[in-house]
Amino acid sequence: MLKEKNIQVKKILDPLNPDKYLRYLGLPTLFGTRRTREILNVNPTIIPQREDSQVINITVYEYNANSLEIHEITSIQDCFRFLNTDKISWINIDGIRKADVELIANQFRIHPLIQEDILSINQRPKMDEIDNILFCLLNMLYYNEQNNTVEQEQISIVLGKNFVISFQEDASRDVFNTLRGKLKINNSKIRQATADYLCYAMLDTIVDHYFIIMEKLGDLIEELEEEVVRKSNKRTLARINVARKEMIVLKRNIAPVRDLVNGIIRSESDLLDDRTTRYFKDVHDHIIQAYDLSENYRDMIMNLQDLYVSQVNLKMNEVMKVMAIVTCLLAPATVIGGIFGMNFDSIPYLHNQYGFWIAVAIMLIIPVWMIRVFKRRGWF
Amino acid sequence: MLKEKNIQVKKILDPLNPDKYLRYLGLPTLFGTRRTREILNVNPTIIPQREDSQVINITVYEYNANSLEIHEITSIQDCFRFLNTDKISWINIDGIRKADVELIANQFRIHPLIQEDILSINQRPKMDEIDNILFCLLNMLYYNEQNNTVEQEQISIVLGKNFVISFQEDASRDVFNTLRGKLKINNSKIRQATADYLCYAMLDTIVDHYFIIMEKLGDLIEELEEEVVRKSNKRTLARINVARKEMIVLKRNIAPVRDLVNGIIRSESDLLDDRTTRYFKDVHDHIIQAYDLSENYRDMIMNLQDLYVSQVNLKMNEVMKVMAIVTCLLAPATVIGGIFGMNFDSIPYLHNQYGFWIAVAIMLIIPVWMIRVFKRRGWF
Amino acid sequence: MLKEKNIQVKKILDPLNPDKYLRYLGLPTLFGTRRTREILNVNPTIIPQREDSQVINITVYEYNANSLEIHEITSIQDCFRFLNTDKISWINIDGIRKADVELIANQFRIHPLIQEDILSINQRPKMDEIDNILFCLLNMLYYNEQNNTVEQEQISIVLGKNFVISFQEDASRDVFNTLRGKLKINNSKIRQATADYLCYAMLDTIVDHYFIIMEKLGDLIEELEEEVVRKSNKRTLARINVARKEMIVLKRNIAPVRDLVNGIIRSESDLLDDRTTRYFKDVHDHIIQAYDLSENYRDMIMNLQDLYVSQVNLKMNEVMKVMAIVTCLLAPATVIGGIFGMNFDSIPYLHNQYGFWIAVAIMLIIPVWMIRVFKRRGWF
Amino acid sequence: MLKEKNIQVKKILDPLNPDKYLRYLGLPTLFGTRRTREILNVNPTIIPQREDSQVINITVYEYNANSLEIHEITSIQDCFRFLNTDKISWINIDGIRKADVELIANQFRIHPLIQEDILSINQRPKMDEIDNILFCLLNMLYYNEQNNTVEQEQISIVLGKNFVISFQEDASRDVFNTLRGKLKINNSKIRQATADYLCYAMLDTIVDHYFIIMEKLGDLIEELEEEVVRKSNKRTLARINVARKEMIVLKRNIAPVRDLVNGIIRSESDLLDDRTTRYFKDVHDHIIQAYDLSENYRDMIMNLQDLYVSQVNLKMNEVMKVMAIVTCLLAPATVIGGIFGMNFDSIPYLHNQYGFWIAVAIMLIIPVWMIRVFKRRGWF
Amino acid sequence: MLKEKNIQVKKILDPLNPDKYLRYLGLPTLFGTRRTREILNVNPTIIPQREDSQVINITVYEYNANSLEIHEITSIQDCFRFLNTDKISWINIDGIRKADVELIANQFRIHPLIQEDILSINQRPKMDEIDNILFCLLNMLYYNEQNNTVEQEQISIVLGKNFVISFQEDASRDVFNTLRGKLKINNSKIRQATADYLCYAMLDTIVDHYFIIMEKLGDLIEELEEEVVRKSNKRTLARINVARKEMIVLKRNIAPVRDLVNGIIRSESDLLDDRTTRYFKDVHDHIIQAYDLSENYRDMIMNLQDLYVSQVNLKMNEVMKVMAIVTCLLAPATVIGGIFGMNFDSIPYLHNQYGFWIAVAIMLIIPVWMIRVFKRRGWF
Repeated sequence: MLKEKNIQVKKILDPLNPDKYLRYLGLPTLFGTRRTREILNVNPTIIPQREDSQVINITVYEYNANSLEIHEITSIQDCFRFLNTDKISWINIDGIRKADVELIANQFRIHPLIQEDILSINQRPKMDEIDNILFCLLNMLYYNEQNNTVEQEQISIVLGKNFVISFQEDASRDVFNTLRGKLKINNSKIRQATADYLCYAMLDTIVDHYFIIMEKLGDLIEELEEEVVRKSNKRTLARINVARKEMIVLKRNIAPVRDLVNGIIRSESDLLDDRTTRYFKDVHDHIIQAYDLSENYRDMIMNLQDLYVSQVNLKMNEVMKVMAIVTCLLAPATVIGGIFGMNFDSIPYLHNQYGFWIAVAIMLIIPVWMIRVFKRRGWF
Repeated sequence: MLKEKNIQVKKILDPLNPDKYLRYLGLPTLFGTRRTREILNVNPTIIPQREDSQVINITVYEYNANSLEIHEITSIQDCFRFLNTDKISWINIDGIRKADVELIANQFRIHPLIQEDILSINQRPKMDEIDNILFCLLNMLYYNEQNNTVEQEQISIVLGKNFVISFQEDASRDVFNTLRGKLKINNSKIRQATADYLCYAMLDTIVDHYFIIMEKLGDLIEELEEEVVRKSNKRTLARINVARKEMIVLKRNIAPVRDLVNGIIRSESDLLDDRTTRYFKDVHDHIIQAYDLSENYRDMIMNLQDLYVSQVNLKMNEVMKVMAIVTCLLAPATVIGGIFGMNFDSIPYLHNQYGFWIAVAIMLIIPVWMIRVFKRRGWF
Repeated sequence: MLKEKNIQVKKILDPLNPDKYLRYLGLPTLFGTRRTREILNVNPTIIPQREDSQVINITVYEYNANSLEIHEITSIQDCFRFLNTDKISWINIDGIRKADVELIANQFRIHPLIQEDILSINQRPKMDEIDNILFCLLNMLYYNEQNNTVEQEQISIVLGKNFVISFQEDASRDVFNTLRGKLKINNSKIRQATADYLCYAMLDTIVDHYFIIMEKLGDLIEELEEEVVRKSNKRTLARINVARKEMIVLKRNIAPVRDLVNGIIRSESDLLDDRTTRYFKDVHDHIIQAYDLSENYRDMIMNLQDLYVSQVNLKMNEVMKVMAIVTCLLAPATVIGGIFGMNFDSIPYLHNQYGFWIAVAIMLIIPVWMIRVFKRRGWF
Repeated sequence: MLKEKNIQVKKILDPLNPDKYLRYLGLPTLFGTRRTREILNVNPTIIPQREDSQVINITVYEYNANSLEIHEITSIQDCFRFLNTDKISWINIDGIRKADVELIANQFRIHPLIQEDILSINQRPKMDEIDNILFCLLNMLYYNEQNNTVEQEQISIVLGKNFVISFQEDASRDVFNTLRGKLKINNSKIRQATADYLCYAMLDTIVDHYFIIMEKLGDLIEELEEEVVRKSNKRTLARINVARKEMIVLKRNIAPVRDLVNGIIRSESDLLDDRTTRYFKDVHDHIIQAYDLSENYRDMIMNLQDLYVSQVNLKMNEVMKVMAIVTCLLAPATVIGGIFGMNFDSIPYLHNQYGFWIAVAIMLIIPVWMIRVFKRRGWF
Repeated sequence: MLKEKNIQVKKILDPLNPDKYLRYLGLPTLFGTRRTREILNVNPTIIPQREDSQVINITVYEYNANSLEIHEITSIQDCFRFLNTDKISWINIDGIRKADVELIANQFRIHPLIQEDILSINQRPKMDEIDNILFCLLNMLYYNEQNNTVEQEQISIVLGKNFVISFQEDASRDVFNTLRGKLKINNSKIRQATADYLCYAMLDTIVDHYFIIMEKLGDLIEELEEEVVRKSNKRTLARINVARKEMIVLKRNIAPVRDLVNGIIRSESDLLDDRTTRYFKDVHDHIIQAYDLSENYRDMIMNLQDLYVSQVNLKMNEVMKVMAIVTCLLAPATVIGGIFGMNFDSIPYLHNQYGFWIAVAIMLIIPVWMIRVFKRRGWF
């Protein structure tokens, strides 16, 4: 609802001269103060007032090297049969409903603490290992092009003996389409491997998607830099401010994923094949690179703000100089005008034929001389 | 007493135009210099001049999976019988009196060092393990909505074989009401578990409450951000300053709790069941998230201050520009007026019929030309 | 000598209006540039030009649980007999004389390196363990109320089998009076314990005294904050600067004491009883709290400086605004005055009866209109 | 293409007065906003849209202590025979073509993950060890003198039993010419050693080349410093900004190479001789020194920016002072002129013969007196 | 050559009024931009273009507890006989010549990597242990009083079974004179100890000398602080800038020496006696104190720069205020002058006898009233 409004304001602003209307239209909207609240009010625990989803979609990919069956399921009970098969099952559940989560979790022997985490909101990315179940919780990130925000969707991945269950909040989008593509190829690496490789592939896909988000933020930073350099105004400051906040969202998601992947690598769970560990190391390399990069971005934005301040100061200085020049150049003329405008009886040259021209000449000569002095001192 | 005054000042200020009266009414009060003293003067040791509470309330929850008895006790001696029962006892003592603490501590074989800690003021959150007693000291935080400060109440939790003793300073409030609710439910998880689970539940409740405090601070930051953007004045600076101080209080309470929980997790005490350790890990995840978040808040407030400075500078620049414009535009007119006001005998056009109008026209043409030049240079 | 002068300047300044005389009287004195040299020129090694004390006072507390004898000794040789007693001896030596230190150290088998440390000046707090001797060197801090500086006195504590020898620089003061009180009480904890407990008690007393120093600095910061907010001037800047330097002294003393206490806790020396280690952990908690607090102080002082700059800028802005307003409001009047002061023959309204009043009216109307425009734009 | 344009702009600018045309010509070009995009958009994974090189050049150095043969090979298959020789082979492949990489990698039993890394773009420097193959990926840095950017070329080094395969992107340049020289010397250290020594020599050469890049950046910083001090203008700010970005590129390449070399040193691979490890330690020392140095550079550039701001402020202050002086000195004259220009009937001295001269004298005396007052207060 | 010039400029400047000539004489020289290049262009590896020294002086101290022989040797071959003696030999070589270094190194079985390090320039301080040889490379620091720079001379210390070889670059100076003195004393500690103690003594002397350098820098900082407070000008900024650079040199030398000494302490080489390790720990304490101190210095210099900016701003503010006051006070007078200077026929009071005086009175009353208003608002 709010976002809607936000976009409309922007649409109205852009075709017009934005600066003119800025002070009447919602500058605070541009500054994203409401976004601040969204970013700051993170409370993973007290009131996990997660509303049950209206709809839940369950898709099961049941596969081994040779065969793949895709099941669209409507009732959670229908999943139970995938617990004890000799194929590998990826049960992807879009939409989180408390009752269903508990139902399936109890069936697949997932510890109540993990159930709580799945149901929680705003949880920090984490991994856990209880009773031969490996659990990862992290966020998929999307970039909202319209208001330049980073959106997140929590995903829980549960790895068991021969199954992976993933819980997503939002049915309308995820980042796994290429993964699904690979699954459909017979004898592809993923089809030949065990369930932990599927888990790796999901983490890898999510982490790789972070780079796309960063690419977008990189474009934004470049755009802002050009705006700062070319024509910085109050709106630029607002936009830098907004970008700075999104960096917080980004970093908050990347930093703990390092620990998550690290935890998997150091885990001695039987679920993880030695060969797959090598692949998780690859994810680790990527997440570290993402982290380094996010540091670079932060530097860049800080730099941007310094630059903005410098630009504003430089502009200010130019204006100040004009003032100084005009004041200095015209002040003597004013004084001379005043001198010969006095009503004394006897003022020299007053009755002289060329008196006026002499006065005007002095008025002109003094500024010219001043300009030369100023120039020599390097003041303009 | 002081706080009372603080609030009244605010009430008087708000309906009026605050800026006008700011310099007469207590600006320092707004800046919270007295709060500074409160925050800085932390002395846990030298003169633990803790006054004995007037009243102490003792409530004992004695329970096992099947039965729960709640005892309201007035004399400390009546607690002694809970030492050797086969049920679990939670002895909650509101109000700290030196004599009583020593009496009960000696009875329950609590080491004198722990007794000292319980009696201390302004202690840093810590955990200790002596003689098969596990001891945690930390602060419950409350948010004072009226003057936007974070208030703290020290709580000591003593975990023994089948009892938990908690010492609170203030009888009027704590954060354990939901916990009490859960205790009253037969066969609830907490009723089925051992005393260490009760200890976990208490820590969990306290840490989770930190997020509520942070939520309030988040709201405050958002509010301040909007104030900075919309109509920043001296008072905004004072409020940012105040928020910055409360962040110190917050961080000082969160950071050492990490060590506390870590200490419990790494402890090899017999008091802690392996299964409960898993729960403490959950608390650990939360306290780390709280810590990360508090870092974000700090960034946010720093950002706010930068923003404030930028806003002030931008406003200043606008004023400067008006000066520049008015000075530049009117200065030539002044000079021309001076020229034709001189009393020379022969000044051209003086006796011309249209002389005056020509002069006035020049006075107008020059500024118009200047405006065009300035516009082209992007000065307004 | 220097300090004397410093104080006198202050006394002269305070009753008068300080700002007026600041530029004639010693502003650099206020800025404490001589203090800078004291703080920076720390050289623990090259030229330990420690002058031998004129007087040395030796006090020995010889005690066990039942008896206490206090000996005032004048000759260092008289201490030798305390080496082999079955009581515990605390030999406190006020005043350091090279010959005496070497005499007693050789007698008590203290390693030459430790002797060097005892004789050194400006040594960093450290602990060492050689040949069954445990050695601690740190500073006692005092707060000089008169010129708001933190003064330090080096103390060396040597713990042996059943003796503690302490070397102090200055006979006139130390922080051990409460400790002496406790020693005089029969069967007090300290009287019943071994020598390592005495060593603990001394460290504890010294560290606890740090909090008193910090309390004073806290008061100073609060005072400065109020000064910044109420009436900041050049002198405030000087005082903030001075406080910043004292923070360096404080931190330089606290940070290495952490390592010192840590070293004792991890030591496996036979001199340290397991039960006493628990007490050293308590000192450790306190020194960490002191360290955290000193970080808070640093933040506070940084904050103060930001605040100072903001205040100065805000004041500057107000002045600028007045300029802008006066310039803008009066400039049109000047121009109009100039227009009708020109000596053209035919100027409209010049001969009109109300001409003057019309001109004056315009002079008034334009500023009134400008004020309204400015107000609407939020410029004052 | 872009770079071309960049240089041309510079060429046009330099002979002319650059400042004059700066606002018309591409200031953003100078600020390097396009470079920002290059630096920020690092995406090692999602779309490794590496185009296959047009040409690939393969050069094989097959050597032992006594003989060296250099083969220029055109087809990848011709390399296969070097896998099983008792000489050491350095197979250097300039230009990366997916098919070829896979062909040779499979032949030499290089794990698919390593193949992926070789084919990737913008990978973070890393090392890996799979199936008795040691793999290093890092960047060679070059300094583009024309637009002062740091360019990077990815190099993959694969160390096997008796071979080293290196994959370079760009056939036109690398840093190994001195290395090739050493290889051609009979009985040189490198010729006598095993393949791991060749790998060391390559890393050493690459890391040592970093110092050349840093030397260039050092020159640039010195040049900028002189520019800031001598004649800082908007262009200087742009150049500092550009240098700051290149520092990010530099650091991003140096920091992970530390981990890379560390990984080799701690590796227990059979491929690495104990004696060679010593040499890798030497590389480690160098890369740490490079890292320290890059920190110094960062400090230097920050310093530069502070300096720039200080210079701009100082200049501004001088201009402000001139304003103040002119305003103050001429304002009294204006007032006096106004006073005696009033049309009152009876103005004293108006009919006095020396009246005019008295007025002018006062106009002169007041400024002279003001100058003396200002001087005494140290205002100029 | 360069330094020479630098000093001369200073000598010319000082007796004259420096500020006046600053813009004509070499300000960049004062800013030390050439020094920047020296500090930044550190390249330990690529082109170790070390020129062979013209002269090399070899001095050998051959000693045991009872006897000491000092040999002045001219040919490197004469040293060879000290390899196998039962006395301890300190071979000090002033001046580094490639051939000689290789000759002696091969004779004393020093690894080629160490030889390379000895011959290198600008190497980072490091220690190494190869083939029962312990090698330390670090810099001796000197303070150049004339241009306030920290100069460094590389020293390599090679510790073998019963010999220490030290390589110095510059024959004209070192820091070992006190050490030589101690060696000449029969039965001194150093004469009784093994070769590792000599090595310790050398490191200790070098590290202790760092404190002397820091003392000088401390004096410089104090001097700068007084200059900032008393009469800051552009030259002060240049000097702060220069000091900041020297801090980089200092820190670059101190930080890695920590690792060096640490490496010795943790080494398990047979060359190091357990008792000597204790002494190295003492060096470690000193180098850590030096490091802490260098951090304090950095803070101090940062502080200085803040102070400088504050001072400049305060001065600026004073000037601005004067402007504001003069403008405000005289503007009304100008307007009134203009009003009564208009040429209207009927202006009230124009023909009044006291009209002029009334006008002048108003001109005076308005400023007096304004002054009172301004004072009440605290504007001066």
